[in-house]
This record gives sequence, structure tokens and C-alpha cells, in this order.
Amino acid sequence: MYSILLNFRNEITRQGLVKDMKQIGVGLLGFGTVGAGVVKGLQERRELLAQKIGADIVLRRIADLDIKSDRGVTVDPAILTTEASEVINDPAVDVVVELIGGTGIAKTLVMEALRAGKSVVTANKKLLAEYGEEIFTLAEESEVDIYFGASVGGGIPIVRVLREGLVGNAIVSMYGILNGTCNYILTRMENEGLPFDDVLKEAQAAGYAESNPSLDIDGFDTAHKAVILASLAYGFHVPMSVAAVEGIRGLAGIDVKFASELGFKIKLLAIIRGEGDEVEVRVSPTLVAVDHVLASVSGVFNAVMVKGDYTGDTLYYGRGAGRKPTASTVIGDICDIARNMIAGGPRHSRGIVRLPSEPPRMRSVSESRSRYYLRLMVLDRAGSLGRFTTILGSHGVSIQAVSQKCGAEVTDSDYQPVVALTHVAREADIEAALAEIRASGVIGGEPVKIRILD
Amino acid sequence: MYSILLNFRNEITRQGLVKDMKQIGVGLLGFGTVGAGVVKGLQERRELLAQKIGADIVLRRIADLDIKSDRGVTVDPAILTTEASEVINDPAVDVVVELIGGTGIAKTLVMEALRAGKSVVTANKKLLAEYGEEIFTLAEESEVDIYFGASVGGGIPIVRVLREGLVGNAIVSMYGILNGTCNYILTRMENEGLPFDDVLKEAQAAGYAESNPSLDIDGFDTAHKAVILASLAYGFHVPMSVAAVEGIRGLAGIDVKFASELGFKIKLLAIIRGEGDEVEVRVSPTLVAVDHVLASVSGVFNAVMVKGDYTGDTLYYGRGAGRKPTASTVIGDICDIARNMIAGGPRHSRGIVRLPSEPPRMRSVSESRSRYYLRLMVLDRAGSLGRFTTILGSHGVSIQAVSQKCGAEVTDSDYQPVVALTHVAREADIEAALAEIRASGVIGGEPVKIRILD
Repeated sequence: MYSILLNFRNEITRQGLVKDMKQIGVGLLGFGTVGAGVVKGLQERRELLAQKIGADIVLRRIADLDIKSDRGVTVDPAILTTEASEVINDPAVDVVVELIGGTGIAKTLVMEALRAGKSVVTANKKLLAEYGEEIFTLAEESEVDIYFGASVGGGIPIVRVLREGLVGNAIVSMYGILNGTCNYILTRMENEGLPFDDVLKEAQAAGYAESNPSLDIDGFDTAHKAVILASLAYGFHVPMSVAAVEGIRGLAGIDVKFASELGFKIKLLAIIRGEGDEVEVRVSPTLVAVDHVLASVSGVFNAVMVKGDYTGDTLYYGRGAGRKPTASTVIGDICDIARNMIAGGPRHSRGIVRLPSEPPRMRSVSESRSRYYLRLMVLDRAGSLGRFTTILGSHGVSIQAVSQKCGAEVTDSDYQPVVALTHVAREADIEAALAEIRASGVIGGEPVKIRILD
Repeated sequence: MYSILLNFRNEITRQGLVKDMKQIGVGLLGFGTVGAGVVKGLQERRELLAQKIGADIVLRRIADLDIKSDRGVTVDPAILTTEASEVINDPAVDVVVELIGGTGIAKTLVMEALRAGKSVVTANKKLLAEYGEEIFTLAEESEVDIYFGASVGGGIPIVRVLREGLVGNAIVSMYGILNGTCNYILTRMENEGLPFDDVLKEAQAAGYAESNPSLDIDGFDTAHKAVILASLAYGFHVPMSVAAVEGIRGLAGIDVKFASELGFKIKLLAIIRGEGDEVEVRVSPTLVAVDHVLASVSGVFNAVMVKGDYTGDTLYYGRGAGRKPTASTVIGDICDIARNMIAGGPRHSRGIVRLPSEPPRMRSVSESRSRYYLRLMVLDRAGSLGRFTTILGSHGVSIQAVSQKCGAEVTDSDYQPVVALTHVAREADIEAALAEIRASGVIGGEPVKIRILD
């Protein structure tokens, strides 16, 4: 379609259609990978966007500490500055786009921009997860828009969908694969039978994982996105402190293998569920049945399955990161603000809607219920297996299937791996049973427990 | 979450928050299944929506020829009328929701509402596919909004995503499973090895298919949705006449079986592709590799895979029909109009954006290129298979794999089924080759040709 666009650009330039349109000035904070993508998109699509939204979006200023490096896009050097305040305080800048990341200077600048009466677009999940309440309140007081589509799901318009498309739904549950690094590692462990550490090292070498991978593999990045989704869905600020977070660090290859034999893939899921007047937010590795649509989300792709009480199950899938996908969502947000500005002002409740009622209670992890995959190294002696199942039963955990596994790589002289799938059980009961099993001396090492998605 | 909503409703009623809000009046044309769902949703969620969008959405009038039957919702009898004009001309009605369907009276009433300065929400794909240009032009002239999210994909917010979320993207391609009836039939044929006619009859008995199933199984319903998606993506009205439409009527069980053996599922796909300055719109049964995410879309579910030049592949999945999913999308549209109204007026280009440049050229079917699955009943005589492959080769169609099939159900004394997968070929070349093969006398019956999704 690129030639259509080029034809069209020539056409519109000839016709001078953009000339009489209202201009919306954009100022960029952070000229990194995504920033350069946004600049390129705004340049390439300026006339097309003008026609689609009825306003001419003009990039006015870019601030970054480094204004020398080549980003693969051509910009007028006069719009570059190392002073963020020059962007925020430029009267020709209507929309400030924050792509710095983190909660230090990014927070200061977003607050400054809102105070200066500028609408803000941000892709900063950590900032919103940790300081969303403060930021959304300020945006409301300043009567400006704040859009944050790219903070969750990169190129997937999940924030827009929750805020607008599903506005009439009570959200029953959301299950999200929200971290491409983890999904890439899990996909390779499964497809190639490689151990976690090897895949992580390769992913780091290939640039798919950070040199300090903790934010990704320990689940915190997923948790940041989960609390943003939960806040959007349930109408109150869900603090990070209530999210139970478990990552994929050290996941054993044999569990990936056993899960696969049982017809499951292991995915790192953000799980957000409303039940009664309780909301549960957690991040954990989870067994997903192979014929579930989330099981087909491979490699660096992300997806969110949202169950609304009206829509039933819906799913949104795409690239959760990367220069162009993220830029696409940032540009969509800028266009929304531009449309609002030419229509007369900010639209109501663009941030997280705070309902005036009491927020629902957060369900504690120990109360949460699920089916479980358990893998234990059980002492290879008569009665061990019986002891193990008896203890589970005494805690009200019933077993759907249990099997003793063999295989040179998992067997030593004294212990044999045993895999059990439980019926739905309370996490607290599972934990109590495992504590007793540990104390009983019939198992070696730490038992492995992974939830099963139903 | 329902109890949260109820608590919240009580809370808000106590606080009287809705009292001072601007009211947006809704008038409904058509009180059928979806209409009743919209009424129920607006009733159940009135306070929640008020809080989320900052306006109180009030159902003012409902018109239907039948205002006696029980729809399972309670409405004040005074708002019911058999006269559509009473809805359209009621000064308290700001938004007219058309849920009558078809292109007769529905068209007249939509045009009347737009002329009367009312914004319109419609779920009517046939109306927009056939008269979209006229309707969108009138909406623009009347300076009102027209929203049509539920015309494609039921509860899936695909129209919103194309119009807003992906606004900065040039759309490379869209592949859609857009008809739940067809997908249900194909899923059962595959899972249970049943013949087409049996599954259709059962689907009719179960209410999943109409007594006159042609609109669904001959692909026209999918085509209506395809031209709406194509128009949204490419910025000009794509007429139904340019869509090449092939349905699933009479699809043979053995082709479903052979496809499955080769690692494919057969799906009825809407295929929309932009290449150079050409656009292709077609509907046809298509082989989809089992590990493709579209292959996991089973039963009555719909999905659209959209490839944007910035986002890359994205996918939207959910229920494509039904009372509550469709009502969810209609309510989302009503809320958008309400937000626009309190912000000051209609938003630019809510219909299909018409770019001022020349529309792209429509690519004719014969020029389209694809890999193909071919199944022919070849004369069981030495040289027949060679003859068949030679003819294909002479038309520039090269074969990736060919195999002779056996099986009591497909074999008779003289002919054996042969399945070939081709490399990418032009449709016109395939057709010419098949014509020559037919004339050569080496095959019995009609050759079967199904495209393969790459």
C-alpha cells in the first residue's frame, strides 16, 4: 500500500488540503528506538493522518540527552534540544509524548507537562503501575487528556478496547501473555527441549532479553501491565503491592516436557479475575491446554484474552514490543487527542475511571483457587506414592491424575519424579499439603507447583 | 463482578451523581434479539456508563411492528411504538439505533434519521456494504456521527481498531473468519468427519443456521463484512461487485480429511490485500496451516488477522454474533457518540474516510496469486498422473507435492483421488491448466481447487 500513500501524499500536497487545517503540535521526550519510530511514522503519514482525523499533526520539538546520534530518521536540527522544559513549555506543543521510561525524570516531566496544561501520551507501564493514581488525578484536575495505549501490549490496542469497545461490560477475567522475552524463552524451551539458562543466554546475545533480565523473567514487567489492565477494568487504582508475582526463572526443562506430554504448554500469564466483590491479580507460570487459543501465541508475540459478561471471550494478539508496533499505538493515541482537541476539549475519563463506590476487595493469593500441576521427586520406596496422595487428600486436595515418570535425565538412585494434576483447590490448602509432604521425608528437593488455566 | 455493579448502582443512586449529568436520548428501531440485548445492557449499566463517560444515556423510544411479545426485558409501555417516525422525530432522541436489518425499510429510516440530524448506530452490514457511500456522505453533510461497530465481528471491536487504533498504519492484509455458521459447519466436518449436508441440517435444527442458509454458506454475509473492512482500510467505498465470492456449499468431506492429513484446516476466509496500488477482496474456502493462529478459531467464533505496516500481524477474536456480544458493541458505539456530544459535536471521519486521491485499482481474481490445494479424480491408468502434472507445468504451475490417495469412500473402479499442493501460481494459470486437464479426459468429475493461506 505504500505507493498508494505516496500518490496520495503528492495529491494532497498539490491540493494544499493540509494548509487550512488546525495544527496540533507534538513534543517528544526521549528519542530512543520507539521515539525514532514515532518520528518516522508522523513524517511518513502526516498527510494521511490529516485526512483521516481532520487535523495536521506537526512534530515541534524533541528532547533527549543525546541529540547527536543517528536514529535513521531525518529531523530539522533546530527542533532538537537537551532541555525537556523547552519541549514542555513550548506554546506550540499541545501534546507531550513521554518515551523516556522509568519512574525518575519521566515522572517529574509527565507531572510538569500535565501541570502546564499539556495532554500527555506515555508508553511507561512502570510509571503508571506505580504512580497512576497521582498522574490520572492531576490530568483530571488539569482538564487534559492522558493516553497510555502503548504501556500494555505494544502494537495491540488492548487499552483502547477496554476503555471504549468493552465499556458496557463487567470484566469477568483477563488472561494475558504480556512479556515477549518470557514467551520467547518458553517457546524455545518447549520446541527445542533446551534448558532455561541456555535459552536465556541466547536471548540475551540476540537482544531479546536485557543483560539484567530480572524485570522480565521475574514477572515484574508483566505485573506492571497487569495492574494497569486491572485498574482499567475495575475502576480503581490497583497498587503493585497487591499483585502476587512469580516469574519463570529457573523453570525446569522436565516440567516443560511433562506438561507437553500431558497436552499443555507453559505460559507466563497475567491473571486478573473478578468474582463476587473480590478482584484477584497475579502473575505466574501457568499450564495452558494446547487447544486453547492462548497456547498458539508463540515467540515474542503477546495476547490478552478478555472475558466480558456481554462479549464472552475475546482475544487480542500482536507484537507486544518493538519500534514500529509501539510507535503505531503511540500515534493512535496522539490522533485521539488531536480529534478531541478539534472537537472542543479532552474527553471524559481517558485515564483510569475511579468509581465513587468502595473499591472491590483484593483477593489474597492463598484464597485463590485453581487446578494445579505438581511435580515432586518421590522417594523410590514402597508406600511413598501413597503417603504423598494421602497427605494431599487430608488437606482437601483431590487428585485427577498421577503418574510416575521415568527418564535418565530426571532419575537418580533414590528418587523418581511423580507428576500429579489436581482438581480445583485453594492455594492455601496446596501450600499446607506441600509443607507436610516436605516434612514427611518422602520427597527430595523442592516440589514444583504450577497452576492450570481452566 | 455483578455484585460490584449492584453495590455501585446503589451507591451512585444514593449520591445522585447522575442527576446533574447531560442526558443523551437513545431511540431504538427494531426490538428483536439484539435490540432486547441493547435495552437490557442500557438498563443494567446505566449508572456505570454514566460514571465512565460523563453522560446519562437514557432509552427514550423503541419502535417495532410487534410491540406485544415478551422480550425478557421490562420497559415502560409508553416508550413503545409501531411508528418508526415517532422515534426519529422525537426531539428527546439524539441517537437512533437501527437494528432492523436488510436494505428496505432500514435504509429509508437510517437516511431519515441522518437527515433529521440524529446520529446513527447500526449493525447492518448489508446496508453499509451496498449503500455505504450514500449513507456516509449524508452523515457527513448532516454533520452527525454514524457508528457501525457491530456490522462486522459482533462482539469483536474490529471496526474501532481499524478506525482508531491502527490509524497510522497502511494495511497490508486482512484475513477474516467472519461467519460463525460456516465456521461451525467446518469445525464439525473436521472434528467428526461428517458430510456437509448432515452438519448443515443439524445446524439448522439447532438454530445455528437459517432455514435459507444461502447468505451464510454461499459467502455473501462474509463478503458484506469484507467490503466494509476493505473500505475502512483503504479509504474508498469498495462496492460488493468487486468482491470475488465463493462459499462452502458442497465442500466434500474428503477434502477436509485430506487437508487435515496434510496439516491444514479449511476455513472460509475473507481475504483483503493491498499490493502496490491494487487492492484484492475475495471470499473463499482456504487451507490454513494447523499452527497458524487462525486455525485455532473454532466453532461459532470469529477472528480477523490484520497486518499493518507498523504493527505487523495482529489478531482480534471473539463471538461474531449473538444477543449480548452484539449489544456490547452497539452500546460501545452509543457511548462514543455520547462522549462526542458532550465534547462538542461529531468527531471527524467516523464513517469510511474518503481519501481525495484516486482510489486504488481493484485486482481481478484471475490476477490473484496463491498456493493451491488441488484434488482430482484421475483415471487409474498408466501415464494419467504424468499427463496431469505435465499440463500443470505447461501453464507455469509448479507442484510442491503430489500424492495418490486411497480409501474406500473415495475410490471407484476407474478413478483414484490425487491431491497436489502447488507453489504460488496465478489463478488464471490454474484455471487454464484445469480446463485443459478436464478436456484431456484423464480425470472424472470436477477438479477441486482450494487456496492455501501463506
